[in-house]
Amino acid sequence: MQPRKRLLTVRRQDQAGVTHKDQVLLEEPLQLTLQGEGQRLRLATILRTPGDDYELVLGYLFALELIRDAGDVKELDYCATPQDFNHLTAIFRGAIPEKALQLRSQEWVHSGCGACGQDSLEVAPPHQVRPLAAWDADWLCALPDQLRKHQDLFEKCGGSHAAALVRPGGKPELVFEDVGRHNAVDKVVGRLLMNKQTAAGNWLLLSGRSGFELIQKAVQAGFSGVASVGPPSSLAVRYAQQAGLTLVGFLRGERYNIYATADPTGD
Amino acid sequence: MQPRKRLLTVRRQDQAGVTHKDQVLLEEPLQLTLQGEGQRLRLATILRTPGDDYELVLGYLFALELIRDAGDVKELDYCATPQDFNHLTAIFRGAIPEKALQLRSQEWVHSGCGACGQDSLEVAPPHQVRPLAAWDADWLCALPDQLRKHQDLFEKCGGSHAAALVRPGGKPELVFEDVGRHNAVDKVVGRLLMNKQTAAGNWLLLSGRSGFELIQKAVQAGFSGVASVGPPSSLAVRYAQQAGLTLVGFLRGERYNIYATADPTGD
Repeated sequence: MQPRKRLLTVRRQDQAGVTHKDQVLLEEPLQLTLQGEGQRLRLATILRTPGDDYELVLGYLFALELIRDAGDVKELDYCATPQDFNHLTAIFRGAIPEKALQLRSQEWVHSGCGACGQDSLEVAPPHQVRPLAAWDADWLCALPDQLRKHQDLFEKCGGSHAAALVRPGGKPELVFEDVGRHNAVDKVVGRLLMNKQTAAGNWLLLSGRSGFELIQKAVQAGFSGVASVGPPSSLAVRYAQQAGLTLVGFLRGERYNIYATADPTGD
Repeated sequence: MQPRKRLLTVRRQDQAGVTHKDQVLLEEPLQLTLQGEGQRLRLATILRTPGDDYELVLGYLFALELIRDAGDVKELDYCATPQDFNHLTAIFRGAIPEKALQLRSQEWVHSGCGACGQDSLEVAPPHQVRPLAAWDADWLCALPDQLRKHQDLFEKCGGSHAAALVRPGGKPELVFEDVGRHNAVDKVVGRLLMNKQTAAGNWLLLSGRSGFELIQKAVQAGFSGVASVGPPSSLAVRYAQQAGLTLVGFLRGERYNIYATADPTGD
Protein backbone atom coordinates (compact mmCIF):
# COMPACT_ATOMS: atom_id res chain seq x y z
CA MET A 1 0.00 0.00 0.00
CA GLN A 2 1.35 3.33 -0.98
CA PRO A 3 -0.01 6.86 -0.76
CA ARG A 4 -1.74 8.02 -3.92
CA LYS A 5 -2.21 11.69 -3.19
CA ARG A 6 0.38 13.86 -4.89
CA LEU A 7 -1.37 17.20 -4.99
CA LEU A 8 -2.62 19.56 -2.33
CA THR A 9 -5.56 21.86 -2.86
CA VAL A 10 -4.85 25.36 -1.60
CA ARG A 11 -6.60 28.69 -1.72
CA ARG A 12 -4.66 31.31 -3.55
CA GLN A 13 -5.31 34.81 -4.79
CA ASP A 14 -4.69 36.03 -8.29
CA GLN A 15 -3.04 39.37 -9.01
CA ALA A 16 -6.43 41.10 -8.72
CA GLY A 17 -6.90 39.73 -5.20
CA VAL A 18 -9.61 37.23 -6.19
CA THR A 19 -9.43 33.94 -4.27
CA HIS A 20 -9.33 30.63 -6.19
CA LYS A 21 -8.92 27.00 -5.33
CA ASP A 22 -5.75 25.64 -6.83
CA GLN A 23 -3.50 22.62 -6.64
CA VAL A 24 0.17 22.57 -5.74
CA LEU A 25 2.62 19.69 -5.95
CA LEU A 26 2.87 17.73 -2.73
CA GLU A 27 6.29 17.83 -1.08
CA GLU A 28 6.68 15.83 2.11
CA PRO A 29 9.60 14.45 4.10
CA LEU A 30 10.03 10.68 3.97
CA GLN A 31 11.93 9.43 6.98
CA LEU A 32 13.87 6.31 6.07
CA THR A 33 14.89 3.81 8.71
CA LEU A 34 16.97 0.70 8.08
CA GLN A 35 16.42 -2.48 10.09
CA GLY A 36 18.39 -5.73 10.16
CA GLU A 37 19.38 -8.35 12.70
CA GLY A 38 18.05 -6.44 15.66
CA GLN A 39 19.54 -3.12 14.61
CA ARG A 40 17.58 -0.03 13.67
CA LEU A 41 19.15 2.99 12.02
CA ARG A 42 17.49 6.20 10.97
CA LEU A 43 19.31 6.89 7.74
CA ALA A 44 17.90 10.02 6.14
CA THR A 45 14.87 12.17 5.53
CA ILE A 46 14.12 12.67 1.87
CA LEU A 47 11.96 15.54 0.69
CA ARG A 48 9.87 14.02 -2.04
CA THR A 49 6.50 13.86 -3.71
CA PRO A 50 4.64 10.96 -2.08
CA GLY A 51 3.93 7.93 -4.22
CA ASP A 52 6.26 5.27 -5.58
CA ASP A 53 8.09 5.39 -2.28
CA TYR A 54 9.22 1.77 -2.57
CA GLU A 55 10.87 2.58 -5.88
CA LEU A 56 12.36 5.74 -4.43
CA VAL A 57 13.87 3.94 -1.46
CA LEU A 58 15.29 1.08 -3.50
CA GLY A 59 16.83 3.48 -6.00
CA TYR A 60 18.15 5.64 -3.19
CA LEU A 61 19.73 2.70 -1.34
CA PHE A 62 21.23 1.49 -4.62
CA ALA A 63 22.72 4.93 -5.32
CA LEU A 64 24.32 4.86 -1.87
CA GLU A 65 25.65 1.37 -2.65
CA LEU A 66 23.78 -0.06 0.33
CA ILE A 67 22.04 -2.67 -1.84
CA ARG A 68 23.07 -4.43 -5.01
CA ASP A 69 19.61 -5.62 -5.96
CA ALA A 70 16.06 -5.57 -4.63
CA GLY A 71 16.63 -8.95 -2.97
CA ASP A 72 18.88 -7.38 -0.35
CA VAL A 73 15.75 -5.85 1.15
CA LYS A 74 13.25 -8.29 2.64
CA GLU A 75 10.46 -5.81 3.26
CA LEU A 76 9.55 -2.15 2.95
CA ASP A 77 7.09 -1.16 5.66
CA TYR A 78 5.27 2.06 6.35
CA CYS A 79 4.92 3.05 9.98
CA ALA A 80 2.19 1.30 11.98
CA THR A 81 -0.20 4.24 11.77
CA PRO A 82 -2.06 3.71 8.51
CA GLN A 83 -2.38 7.44 7.94
CA ASP A 84 1.34 7.99 8.13
CA PHE A 85 3.05 7.47 4.84
CA ASN A 86 6.10 9.50 5.77
CA HIS A 87 7.95 6.89 7.81
CA LEU A 88 9.29 3.92 5.90
CA THR A 89 11.45 1.10 7.20
CA ALA A 90 13.62 -0.98 4.89
CA ILE A 91 14.14 -4.37 6.51
CA PHE A 92 17.32 -6.03 5.31
CA ARG A 93 17.63 -9.79 4.87
CA GLY A 94 20.84 -9.70 6.82
CA ALA A 95 22.55 -7.07 8.92
CA ILE A 96 22.47 -3.41 8.02
CA PRO A 97 25.44 -2.76 5.72
CA GLU A 98 28.49 -1.43 7.50
CA LYS A 99 28.59 1.48 5.07
CA ALA A 100 25.19 2.70 6.28
CA LEU A 101 26.59 3.16 9.76
CA GLN A 102 29.29 5.40 8.35
CA LEU A 103 26.87 7.33 6.19
CA ARG A 104 24.41 7.92 8.96
CA SER A 105 24.06 11.58 9.46
CA GLN A 106 20.31 11.93 9.90
CA GLU A 107 20.49 14.67 7.37
CA TRP A 108 17.63 15.99 5.39
CA VAL A 109 18.30 15.09 1.84
CA HIS A 110 17.10 17.56 -0.66
CA SER A 111 17.10 15.35 -3.63
CA GLY A 112 18.31 11.89 -2.89
CA CYS A 113 21.80 12.88 -3.92
CA GLY A 114 23.78 9.83 -4.98
CA ALA A 115 27.06 11.28 -3.91
CA CYS A 116 26.16 11.70 -0.24
CA GLY A 117 28.60 10.10 2.07
CA GLN A 118 31.62 10.63 -0.12
CA ASP A 119 34.40 11.62 2.19
CA SER A 120 36.67 13.13 -0.36
CA LEU A 121 36.68 15.62 -3.14
CA GLU A 122 37.89 13.11 -5.65
CA VAL A 123 35.30 11.12 -7.49
CA ALA A 124 36.25 7.55 -8.27
CA PRO A 125 36.56 7.02 -12.02
CA PRO A 126 33.32 5.57 -13.35
CA HIS A 127 33.01 2.08 -14.73
CA GLN A 128 32.46 1.87 -18.47
CA VAL A 129 28.87 1.59 -19.57
CA ARG A 130 27.78 -0.59 -22.48
CA PRO A 131 28.24 1.51 -25.64
CA LEU A 132 25.05 2.83 -27.13
CA ALA A 133 24.13 1.89 -30.69
CA ALA A 134 23.54 4.58 -33.32
CA TRP A 135 20.10 6.15 -33.19
CA ASP A 136 17.66 7.89 -35.44
CA ALA A 137 17.53 11.66 -34.89
CA ASP A 138 13.78 11.93 -35.55
CA TRP A 139 13.12 9.22 -33.02
CA LEU A 140 15.17 10.99 -30.35
CA CYS A 141 13.56 14.37 -31.06
CA ALA A 142 10.09 12.90 -30.56
CA LEU A 143 10.81 11.73 -27.01
CA PRO A 144 10.19 14.94 -25.01
CA ASP A 145 6.65 15.30 -26.39
CA GLN A 146 5.98 11.65 -25.62
CA LEU A 147 7.30 12.14 -22.11
CA ARG A 148 5.06 15.18 -21.62
CA LYS A 149 2.00 13.02 -22.17
CA HIS A 150 2.95 11.03 -19.06
CA GLN A 151 3.71 14.08 -16.92
CA ASP A 152 0.35 14.27 -15.20
CA LEU A 153 1.62 16.23 -12.21
CA PHE A 154 3.42 18.74 -14.38
CA GLU A 155 0.28 19.15 -16.45
CA LYS A 156 -1.81 19.84 -13.35
CA CYS A 157 0.41 22.13 -11.33
CA GLY A 158 3.91 22.39 -12.78
CA GLY A 159 6.96 22.17 -10.58
CA SER A 160 7.69 18.47 -11.08
CA HIS A 161 10.56 16.72 -12.81
CA ALA A 162 10.21 13.54 -14.82
CA ALA A 163 12.59 10.71 -15.61
CA ALA A 164 12.00 7.63 -17.76
CA LEU A 165 13.70 4.69 -19.37
CA VAL A 166 13.68 4.53 -23.16
CA ARG A 167 14.75 1.49 -25.17
CA PRO A 168 16.45 2.20 -28.51
CA GLY A 169 13.70 3.02 -31.00
CA GLY A 170 11.05 2.83 -28.27
CA LYS A 171 8.88 5.19 -26.28
CA PRO A 172 9.33 6.41 -22.70
CA GLU A 173 8.65 3.67 -20.12
CA LEU A 174 8.78 3.69 -16.33
CA VAL A 175 7.96 7.39 -16.19
CA PHE A 176 8.19 8.87 -12.70
CA GLU A 177 7.59 12.41 -11.53
CA ASP A 178 8.80 14.08 -8.37
CA VAL A 179 9.43 17.49 -6.84
CA GLY A 180 13.10 16.44 -6.79
CA ARG A 181 14.80 15.49 -10.03
CA HIS A 182 17.13 13.11 -8.21
CA ASN A 183 14.14 11.38 -6.71
CA ALA A 184 12.58 10.87 -10.13
CA VAL A 185 15.76 9.10 -11.27
CA ASP A 186 15.92 7.03 -8.07
CA LYS A 187 12.35 5.90 -8.74
CA VAL A 188 13.23 4.74 -12.25
CA VAL A 189 16.24 2.83 -10.95
CA GLY A 190 14.20 1.42 -8.06
CA ARG A 191 11.55 0.12 -10.44
CA LEU A 192 14.26 -1.47 -12.61
CA LEU A 193 15.58 -3.23 -9.50
CA MET A 194 12.07 -4.40 -8.55
CA ASN A 195 11.56 -5.70 -12.09
CA LYS A 196 15.05 -7.23 -12.25
CA GLN A 197 15.46 -5.30 -15.51
CA THR A 198 18.76 -3.99 -16.81
CA ALA A 199 19.38 -0.41 -17.84
CA ALA A 200 22.28 -1.40 -20.12
CA GLY A 201 21.78 -0.50 -23.75
CA ASN A 202 18.99 1.93 -22.88
CA TRP A 203 18.52 5.67 -22.43
CA LEU A 204 17.58 7.63 -19.36
CA LEU A 205 15.34 10.51 -20.41
CA LEU A 206 15.22 13.62 -18.21
CA SER A 207 12.72 16.48 -18.38
CA GLY A 208 15.23 18.96 -16.99
CA ARG A 209 18.95 19.50 -16.80
CA SER A 210 21.67 16.89 -16.39
CA GLY A 211 23.94 17.72 -13.49
CA PHE A 212 26.78 15.61 -12.19
CA GLU A 213 24.81 13.59 -9.68
CA LEU A 214 22.18 12.54 -12.17
CA ILE A 215 24.84 11.36 -14.60
CA GLN A 216 26.56 9.52 -11.78
CA LYS A 217 23.30 7.77 -10.91
CA ALA A 218 22.72 6.88 -14.57
CA VAL A 219 26.20 5.38 -14.94
CA GLN A 220 25.89 3.49 -11.67
CA ALA A 221 22.58 1.99 -12.78
CA GLY A 222 24.18 0.94 -16.07
CA PHE A 223 22.37 3.20 -18.55
CA SER A 224 24.15 3.63 -21.88
CA GLY A 225 22.81 7.07 -22.69
CA VAL A 226 21.22 10.09 -21.07
CA ALA A 227 19.07 12.56 -22.99
CA SER A 228 17.95 15.70 -21.21
CA VAL A 229 15.70 18.52 -22.30
CA GLY A 230 17.97 20.94 -20.46
CA PRO A 231 21.73 21.41 -20.67
CA PRO A 232 24.43 19.40 -18.88
CA SER A 233 26.94 20.85 -16.44
CA SER A 234 30.69 20.72 -16.98
CA LEU A 235 31.15 17.96 -14.43
CA ALA A 236 28.38 15.93 -16.04
CA VAL A 237 30.07 16.16 -19.43
CA ARG A 238 33.42 15.09 -18.03
CA TYR A 239 32.00 12.15 -16.12
CA ALA A 240 29.96 10.96 -19.11
CA GLN A 241 33.05 11.11 -21.30
CA GLN A 242 35.00 9.04 -18.79
CA ALA A 243 32.25 6.43 -18.58
CA GLY A 244 31.64 6.15 -22.31
CA LEU A 245 28.08 7.31 -21.66
CA THR A 246 26.31 9.00 -24.55
CA LEU A 247 25.13 12.37 -23.30
CA VAL A 248 22.60 14.42 -25.23
CA GLY A 249 21.39 17.80 -24.00
CA PHE A 250 19.08 20.58 -25.15
CA LEU A 251 16.80 17.96 -26.69
CA ARG A 252 14.13 20.36 -27.89
CA GLY A 253 12.04 20.46 -31.03
CA GLU A 254 14.10 19.22 -33.95
CA ARG A 255 17.54 19.72 -32.50
CA TYR A 256 19.86 18.52 -29.79
CA ASN A 257 23.53 18.59 -28.81
CA ILE A 258 25.77 15.59 -28.21
CA TYR A 259 28.22 16.26 -25.38
CA ALA A 260 29.70 12.78 -25.01
CA THR A 261 29.57 9.61 -27.02
CA ALA A 262 30.51 5.99 -26.54
CA ASP A 263 33.46 6.54 -28.86
CA PRO A 264 34.94 9.95 -28.12
CA THR A 265 37.72 9.44 -30.66
CA GLY A 266 35.24 8.87 -33.46
CA ASP A 267 33.87 12.36 -33.82
CA MET B 1 40.71 36.57 -4.73
CA GLN B 2 38.02 34.41 -6.13
CA PRO B 3 37.74 32.31 -9.26
CA ARG B 4 36.12 34.13 -12.14
CA LYS B 5 35.63 31.31 -14.61
CA ARG B 6 32.10 29.97 -14.63
CA LEU B 7 31.90 28.36 -18.03
CA LEU B 8 33.72 25.48 -19.66
CA THR B 9 34.29 25.29 -23.39
CA VAL B 10 33.53 21.83 -24.73
CA ARG B 11 33.32 20.26 -28.14
CA ARG B 12 29.91 18.93 -28.93
CA GLN B 13 28.17 17.55 -31.98
CA ASP B 14 24.86 18.70 -33.32
CA GLN B 15 22.18 16.27 -34.46
CA ALA B 16 23.79 16.11 -37.91
CA GLY B 17 27.08 14.98 -36.36
CA VAL B 18 28.89 18.27 -37.00
CA THR B 19 31.32 19.28 -34.25
CA HIS B 20 31.06 22.71 -32.62
CA LYS B 21 32.72 24.53 -29.77
CA ASP B 22 30.21 25.29 -27.07
CA GLN B 23 30.08 26.45 -23.48
CA VAL B 24 28.53 24.61 -20.56
CA LEU B 25 27.94 25.86 -17.04
CA LEU B 26 30.79 25.07 -14.69
CA GLU B 27 29.89 22.74 -11.81
CA GLU B 28 32.65 21.95 -9.36
CA PRO B 29 32.83 20.60 -5.82
CA LEU B 30 33.81 23.11 -3.17
CA GLN B 31 35.26 21.40 -0.15
CA LEU B 32 34.56 23.42 2.97
CA THR B 33 36.73 23.12 6.05
CA LEU B 34 36.14 24.91 9.34
CA GLN B 35 39.03 26.01 11.54
CA GLY B 36 39.04 27.49 15.01
CA GLU B 37 41.19 27.33 18.14
CA GLY B 38 43.44 24.61 16.80
CA GLN B 39 40.62 22.48 15.47
CA ARG B 40 40.02 21.64 11.83
CA LEU B 41 36.83 20.06 10.59
CA ARG B 42 35.94 19.12 7.03
CA LEU B 43 32.30 20.05 6.99
CA ALA B 44 30.88 19.41 3.54
CA THR B 45 31.49 19.40 -0.17
CA ILE B 46 29.13 21.63 -2.08
CA LEU B 47 28.58 21.18 -5.80
CA ARG B 48 28.40 24.70 -7.10
CA THR B 49 29.29 27.05 -9.91
CA PRO B 50 32.60 28.67 -8.93
CA GLY B 51 32.56 32.37 -8.15
CA ASP B 52 31.12 34.23 -5.16
CA ASP B 53 32.36 31.40 -2.98
CA TYR B 54 32.75 33.66 0.04
CA GLU B 55 29.10 34.64 -0.22
CA LEU B 56 28.14 31.01 -0.75
CA VAL B 57 30.00 29.83 2.32
CA LEU B 58 28.70 32.59 4.58
CA GLY B 59 25.13 31.97 3.44
CA TYR B 60 25.60 28.24 3.82
CA LEU B 61 27.01 28.54 7.35
CA PHE B 62 24.19 30.91 8.25
CA ALA B 63 21.58 28.47 6.95
CA LEU B 64 23.11 25.76 9.13
CA GLU B 65 22.99 28.19 12.08
CA LEU B 66 26.76 27.93 12.48
CA ILE B 67 27.17 31.72 12.27
CA ARG B 68 24.88 34.59 13.23
CA ASP B 69 26.70 37.24 11.24
CA ALA B 70 29.76 37.62 9.04
CA GLY B 71 31.82 38.68 12.06
CA ASP B 72 31.80 35.13 13.43
CA VAL B 73 34.21 34.23 10.64
CA LYS B 74 37.65 35.84 10.82
CA GLU B 75 38.87 34.74 7.41
CA LEU B 76 37.89 32.76 4.35
CA ASP B 77 40.97 31.21 2.73
CA TYR B 78 41.42 29.22 -0.41
CA CYS B 79 43.89 26.36 -0.25
CA ALA B 80 47.58 27.24 -0.53
CA THR B 81 47.80 26.22 -4.18
CA PRO B 82 46.77 29.31 -6.09
CA GLN B 83 45.23 27.22 -8.85
CA ASP B 84 42.96 25.40 -6.50
CA PHE B 85 39.73 27.25 -5.88
CA ASN B 86 37.87 24.17 -4.72
CA HIS B 87 39.15 24.02 -1.14
CA LEU B 88 38.02 26.80 1.15
CA THR B 89 38.66 27.15 4.86
CA ALA B 90 36.45 29.27 7.09
CA ILE B 91 38.50 30.39 10.08
CA PHE B 92 36.31 31.18 13.07
CA ARG B 93 37.17 33.91 15.56
CA GLY B 94 36.57 31.48 18.35
CA ALA B 95 36.12 27.73 18.51
CA ILE B 96 34.24 25.82 15.87
CA PRO B 97 30.58 25.79 16.93
CA GLU B 98 29.56 22.65 18.78
CA LYS B 99 26.73 22.16 16.31
CA ALA B 100 29.20 21.76 13.45
CA LEU B 101 30.71 18.75 15.14
CA GLN B 102 27.29 17.14 15.27
CA LEU B 103 26.50 18.06 11.69
CA ARG B 104 29.75 16.77 10.35
CA SER B 105 29.03 14.06 7.89
CA GLN B 106 31.48 14.87 5.13
CA GLU B 107 28.59 14.54 2.77
CA TRP B 108 28.41 15.88 -0.70
CA VAL B 109 25.77 18.50 -0.64
CA HIS B 110 23.79 18.81 -3.79
CA SER B 111 22.49 22.22 -3.23
CA GLY B 112 23.53 23.70 0.07
CA CYS B 113 20.31 22.44 1.62
CA GLY B 114 19.47 24.54 4.67
CA ALA B 115 17.72 21.70 6.42
CA CYS B 116 20.75 19.41 6.57
CA GLY B 117 21.48 18.19 10.02
CA GLN B 118 17.88 18.09 11.18
CA ASP B 119 17.55 14.96 13.19
CA SER B 120 13.81 14.74 13.14
CA LEU B 121 10.95 14.79 10.74
CA GLU B 122 9.30 17.69 12.50
CA VAL B 123 10.25 21.15 11.41
CA ALA B 124 10.38 23.75 14.13
CA PRO B 125 7.70 26.40 13.63
CA PRO B 126 9.21 29.37 11.86
CA HIS B 127 9.66 32.77 13.45
CA GLN B 128 7.38 35.47 12.12
CA VAL B 129 8.85 37.64 9.40
CA ARG B 130 8.18 41.36 9.18
CA PRO B 131 4.90 41.77 7.26
CA LEU B 132 5.27 42.95 3.70
CA ALA B 133 3.61 46.18 2.63
CA ALA B 134 1.12 46.19 -0.26
CA TRP B 135 2.70 46.26 -3.69
CA ASP B 136 1.94 47.36 -7.19
CA ALA B 137 1.07 44.47 -9.52
CA ASP B 138 2.75 46.02 -12.56
CA TRP B 139 5.94 46.52 -10.60
CA LEU B 140 5.99 42.88 -9.49
CA CYS B 141 5.26 41.58 -12.99
CA ALA B 142 8.20 43.49 -14.42
CA LEU B 143 10.73 41.79 -12.12
CA PRO B 144 11.41 38.53 -14.03
CA ASP B 145 12.42 40.41 -17.19
CA GLN B 146 14.66 42.68 -15.15
CA LEU B 147 16.22 39.65 -13.50
CA ARG B 148 16.83 38.03 -16.88
CA LYS B 149 19.04 40.96 -17.90
CA HIS B 150 21.39 40.01 -15.06
CA GLN B 151 21.40 36.29 -15.83
CA ASP B 152 24.60 36.24 -17.88
CA LEU B 153 25.28 32.55 -17.35
CA PHE B 154 21.75 31.57 -18.27
CA GLU B 155 21.99 33.70 -21.37
CA LYS B 156 25.24 32.01 -22.44
CA CYS B 157 24.55 28.37 -21.70
CA GLY B 158 21.31 27.88 -19.75
CA GLY B 159 21.13 25.56 -16.81
CA SER B 160 21.65 28.15 -14.09
CA HIS B 161 19.31 29.43 -11.42
CA ALA B 162 19.21 33.02 -10.22
CA ALA B 163 18.22 34.63 -6.95
CA ALA B 164 18.12 38.30 -6.02
CA LEU B 165 16.99 40.74 -3.40
CA VAL B 166 14.33 43.27 -4.39
CA ARG B 167 13.32 46.24 -2.27
CA PRO B 168 9.66 47.30 -2.45
CA GLY B 169 9.24 49.27 -5.67
CA GLY B 170 12.85 48.60 -6.66
CA LYS B 171 14.74 46.52 -9.15
CA PRO B 172 16.62 43.22 -8.58
CA GLU B 173 19.83 43.72 -6.59
CA LEU B 174 22.46 41.25 -5.42
CA VAL B 175 21.76 38.92 -8.33
CA PHE B 176 23.58 35.60 -8.10
CA GLU B 177 23.54 32.63 -10.45
CA ASP B 178 24.49 29.05 -9.73
CA VAL B 179 23.99 25.53 -11.00
CA GLY B 180 22.19 24.89 -7.70
CA ARG B 181 19.20 27.01 -6.79
CA HIS B 182 19.95 26.67 -3.08
CA ASN B 183 23.44 27.96 -3.71
CA ALA B 184 22.09 31.04 -5.49
CA VAL B 185 20.00 31.85 -2.41
CA ASP B 186 22.93 31.18 -0.07
CA LYS B 187 24.99 33.65 -2.11
CA VAL B 188 22.35 36.37 -1.74
CA VAL B 189 22.15 35.78 2.01
CA GLY B 190 25.94 35.63 2.27
CA ARG B 191 26.29 38.98 0.53
CA LEU B 192 23.68 40.49 2.85
CA LEU B 193 25.74 39.25 5.80
CA MET B 194 28.93 40.70 4.30
CA ASN B 195 27.17 44.03 3.76
CA LYS B 196 25.50 43.94 7.18
CA GLN B 197 22.23 44.52 5.32
CA THR B 198 18.87 43.31 6.49
CA ALA B 199 16.50 41.28 4.37
CA ALA B 200 13.46 42.37 6.41
CA GLY B 201 10.82 44.23 4.44
CA ASN B 202 12.27 43.01 1.14
CA TRP B 203 11.55 40.32 -1.44
CA LEU B 204 13.62 37.35 -2.47
CA LEU B 205 13.18 36.84 -6.21
CA LEU B 206 13.74 33.34 -7.64
CA SER B 207 14.11 32.38 -11.30
CA GLY B 208 12.73 28.90 -10.69
CA ARG B 209 10.43 27.10 -8.30
CA SER B 210 10.03 27.65 -4.57
CA GLY B 211 10.45 24.43 -2.65
CA PHE B 212 10.41 24.07 1.11
CA GLU B 213 14.11 24.54 1.70
CA LEU B 214 14.28 27.80 -0.23
CA ILE B 215 11.36 29.20 1.72
CA GLN B 216 13.00 28.06 4.93
CA LYS B 217 16.20 29.86 3.95
CA ALA B 218 14.24 33.00 3.06
CA VAL B 219 12.43 33.04 6.41
CA GLN B 220 15.62 32.36 8.30
CA ALA B 221 17.34 35.27 6.57
CA GLY B 222 14.40 37.51 7.44
CA PHE B 223 12.90 38.19 4.00
CA SER B 224 9.29 39.38 4.06
CA GLY B 225 8.29 38.01 0.68
CA VAL B 226 9.34 35.46 -1.92
CA ALA B 227 8.39 35.74 -5.57
CA SER B 228 9.22 32.86 -7.86
CA VAL B 229 8.79 32.41 -11.58
CA GLY B 230 7.88 28.77 -10.96
CA PRO B 231 5.31 27.26 -8.62
CA PRO B 232 5.70 26.55 -4.90
CA SER B 233 5.42 23.11 -3.32
CA SER B 234 2.82 22.22 -0.70
CA LEU B 235 5.35 22.33 2.12
CA ALA B 236 6.59 25.72 0.95
CA VAL B 237 3.06 27.13 1.05
CA ARG B 238 2.43 25.78 4.53
CA TYR B 239 5.70 27.08 5.92
CA ALA B 240 5.20 30.52 4.36
CA GLN B 241 1.71 30.73 5.86
CA GLN B 242 3.09 29.85 9.29
CA ALA B 243 5.81 32.49 9.03
CA GLY B 244 3.60 35.28 7.71
CA LEU B 245 5.79 35.32 4.60
CA THR B 246 4.18 36.61 1.43
CA LEU B 247 4.60 33.91 -1.20
CA VAL B 248 4.00 34.64 -4.87
CA GLY B 249 4.40 31.95 -7.53
CA PHE B 250 3.98 31.60 -11.29
CA LEU B 251 5.17 35.18 -11.69
CA ARG B 252 5.05 35.25 -15.47
CA GLY B 253 4.02 37.90 -17.95
CA GLU B 254 1.14 39.89 -16.52
CA ARG B 255 -0.07 37.43 -13.94
CA TYR B 256 0.93 35.69 -10.74
CA ASN B 257 -0.61 33.72 -7.87
CA ILE B 258 -0.44 34.61 -4.18
CA TYR B 259 -0.13 31.49 -2.04
CA ALA B 260 0.48 33.12 1.33
CA THR B 261 0.24 36.63 2.69
CA ALA B 262 1.29 38.46 5.82
CA ASP B 263 -2.33 38.52 6.89
CA PRO B 264 -3.89 35.18 6.00
CA THR B 265 -7.24 36.20 7.53
CA GLY B 266 -7.51 39.19 5.28
CA ASP B 267 -8.21 37.44 2.00
